[in-house]
Amino acid sequence: MARVEEILSRVQAEGDAALMELTERFDGVRPDPLRIPPQRLADAWQATPASLKDALRLAHQRILSFHQHQLPADLAVTGPHGELLGRRWRPVQRAGLYVPGGRASYPSTVLMNAVPARVAGVQRLVMVTPPGPGGEPHETVLAAAHLAGVEEVYRVGGAQAIGALAFGTATIPRVDVISGPGNLYVTLAKKAVYGRVAIDSLAGPSEVLVIADHSARADQVAADLLAQAEHDPLAAAILLTTSPELAAAMPAALAAQLENHPRAEITRTALNDWGLIVLCDSLGRAAQLSDCFAPEHLELLVEDPEILAEQIQHAGAIFMGPYTPEAVGDYLAGPNHTLPTAGTARFAGALSVETFMRHTSLIRFNREALEATGSAVITLAESEGLHSHAESVKRRLN
Amino acid sequence: MARVEEILSRVQAEGDAALMELTERFDGVRPDPLRIPPQRLADAWQATPASLKDALRLAHQRILSFHQHQLPADLAVTGPHGELLGRRWRPVQRAGLYVPGGRASYPSTVLMNAVPARVAGVQRLVMVTPPGPGGEPHETVLAAAHLAGVEEVYRVGGAQAIGALAFGTATIPRVDVISGPGNLYVTLAKKAVYGRVAIDSLAGPSEVLVIADHSARADQVAADLLAQAEHDPLAAAILLTTSPELAAAMPAALAAQLENHPRAEITRTALNDWGLIVLCDSLGRAAQLSDCFAPEHLELLVEDPEILAEQIQHAGAIFMGPYTPEAVGDYLAGPNHTLPTAGTARFAGALSVETFMRHTSLIRFNREALEATGSAVITLAESEGLHSHAESVKRRLN
Repeated sequence: MARVEEILSRVQAEGDAALMELTERFDGVRPDPLRIPPQRLADAWQATPASLKDALRLAHQRILSFHQHQLPADLAVTGPHGELLGRRWRPVQRAGLYVPGGRASYPSTVLMNAVPARVAGVQRLVMVTPPGPGGEPHETVLAAAHLAGVEEVYRVGGAQAIGALAFGTATIPRVDVISGPGNLYVTLAKKAVYGRVAIDSLAGPSEVLVIADHSARADQVAADLLAQAEHDPLAAAILLTTSPELAAAMPAALAAQLENHPRAEITRTALNDWGLIVLCDSLGRAAQLSDCFAPEHLELLVEDPEILAEQIQHAGAIFMGPYTPEAVGDYLAGPNHTLPTAGTARFAGALSVETFMRHTSLIRFNREALEATGSAVITLAESEGLHSHAESVKRRLN
Repeated sequence: MARVEEILSRVQAEGDAALMELTERFDGVRPDPLRIPPQRLADAWQATPASLKDALRLAHQRILSFHQHQLPADLAVTGPHGELLGRRWRPVQRAGLYVPGGRASYPSTVLMNAVPARVAGVQRLVMVTPPGPGGEPHETVLAAAHLAGVEEVYRVGGAQAIGALAFGTATIPRVDVISGPGNLYVTLAKKAVYGRVAIDSLAGPSEVLVIADHSARADQVAADLLAQAEHDPLAAAILLTTSPELAAAMPAALAAQLENHPRAEITRTALNDWGLIVLCDSLGRAAQLSDCFAPEHLELLVEDPEILAEQIQHAGAIFMGPYTPEAVGDYLAGPNHTLPTAGTARFAGALSVETFMRHTSLIRFNREALEATGSAVITLAESEGLHSHAESVKRRLN
């Protein structure tokens, strides 16, 4: 945290010069100019293979369509005396989207962050992403930005990018909300600037918890656990099952799919450190244990997933039945893949359109409403010793 | 922040013993037992004068009624292949309500925090409030807790109370969300535990900005500015007006109402340090200046407040027309009085029912949906180098 605070202070004091120097130090590239020319985004899209273009278009369309249903409605309530009480939603003016580099540089991250911001109606989307070894971000990340309508992309990452979005520099505008996952430096920087800007959440390593009964196929469960473990050596993959046969079959099923796995080392490390198979005496017990963990992703590979889902209190997203591997939600089902980790599903949900909006209360009393309620306001104000609060009502009733 | 971190560490390590010792040190009282007997809450309500009871009941009823309109609806969307995509809202299980002591110990704070939590459906409300000099919290605060249905009240405040709610002790349960205003220690403690629990916001000193034209009465404007200034020496009270006559009349109007004012010293300090009167050449210009400030409370004392409200981008709450002094919103209009301060209306809104809820995404694909989208998922997974993500789909389609 001390190192993050120092980086943030430097960005606040020195602006672009600090971004240049810190990026050179941490990423080995001097990102001058910071901004990726907009034409580069269009070129990256043009250069994308047709099958990947189609897949990205389908994902974009489905994510867009689901998020449009989240747009919150304004409230306008008329009180008993004809007074107006309301709540008005508006988009924030500027959103900052953080897209990680390295192993976790994913075009799907771009879509899952940019689409809700655009559906909210945010005027200005500012994307930051660290330059790779060649000085440029990941090509498909740029293509996805183009598809999602993001025009402003800067090649800077880490805590310094979060500082730029929170404080603003000569080149990068200060934003109102910062979303997107990152490494520990990014997460600590987001926590540090929280309050000065809104942030989506503090993301930890990804997790899946699978509840499976006798109806689940061992090779499918194994693929789902491995799909989590392959993300990150710290990813957690947990199976709770009522089937002794399934539990017994898992080690061999996992081992078979780890052969020739392109990320075998990461995956094996995650399974060793954060993998777990638990045999439960009932699905109800499995649901209780799952709630203790409050998983980011919960798969219900059971005969009647709807009934079990009703019993679950805490989960970021629930994937129901045999045809819903988590991967469909990661890419294109529609709901957001940015989900609460590390037990925070107790109080948080997926990134959503509302993340990029805020509301304003509206109150318009008329004379009748003030006459009907004014003496209560005066009584309450005087009980709290707030003389002028009472006076502000009296001077309207006299 | 270092002192806050130390207090939080002690509470995490030593639990109730730390609460006893820290409360004795900071509040001069050893709060043993910590919990206020539930009967004390009912007794406090019984002992409340009838007129204050009626005023509290009216406020409670109106706040309840407005917040019930905020309950979010679940989403259940059927995709093109019959797949289910949904979002399910649930209350958090436990909420912690912080009610300050001393000068800012208000029964209205109790109602404004407890009512949205109860409307959300939170099972367990845990209120903390520091003991006064006699060892007991403010009597009307206890009465308001009884009215709002809060049964669990602990006499502990400051950063140590936030620590208790975030970590849990033998006596005080760990909660999922902490809401409520407090002094700088409380605010820094909320920031420190943010991420481990949800928090409502980081509250700063209160502010009002009044936009007034020739139709506004100087004595009413003065009362409204003083009603903000009397809260706190750091409170800001700002007038933007297009009327030279009104601007010229303000000093005398303020001085007249400061005579014999019970909080004259606080109020005068706030006006001197944070008061401002600005003469604007148009209401449009006033709206622009107001947006630069993004006020917590915005009063529109102008002939056509609806038109002006449309031009405003950033405000926590807008009070429209001559019969809507901010005080009605502070106590009983209906919308919440916990509002974004210090420019955070750019990205935040009032405390609301959703503060005490979270949502879970629901996805249920069928075979047809997976067949229609599976190849796109595989393409995207392979483009990101996530082998088992692709495998998890292939093993369901074969």
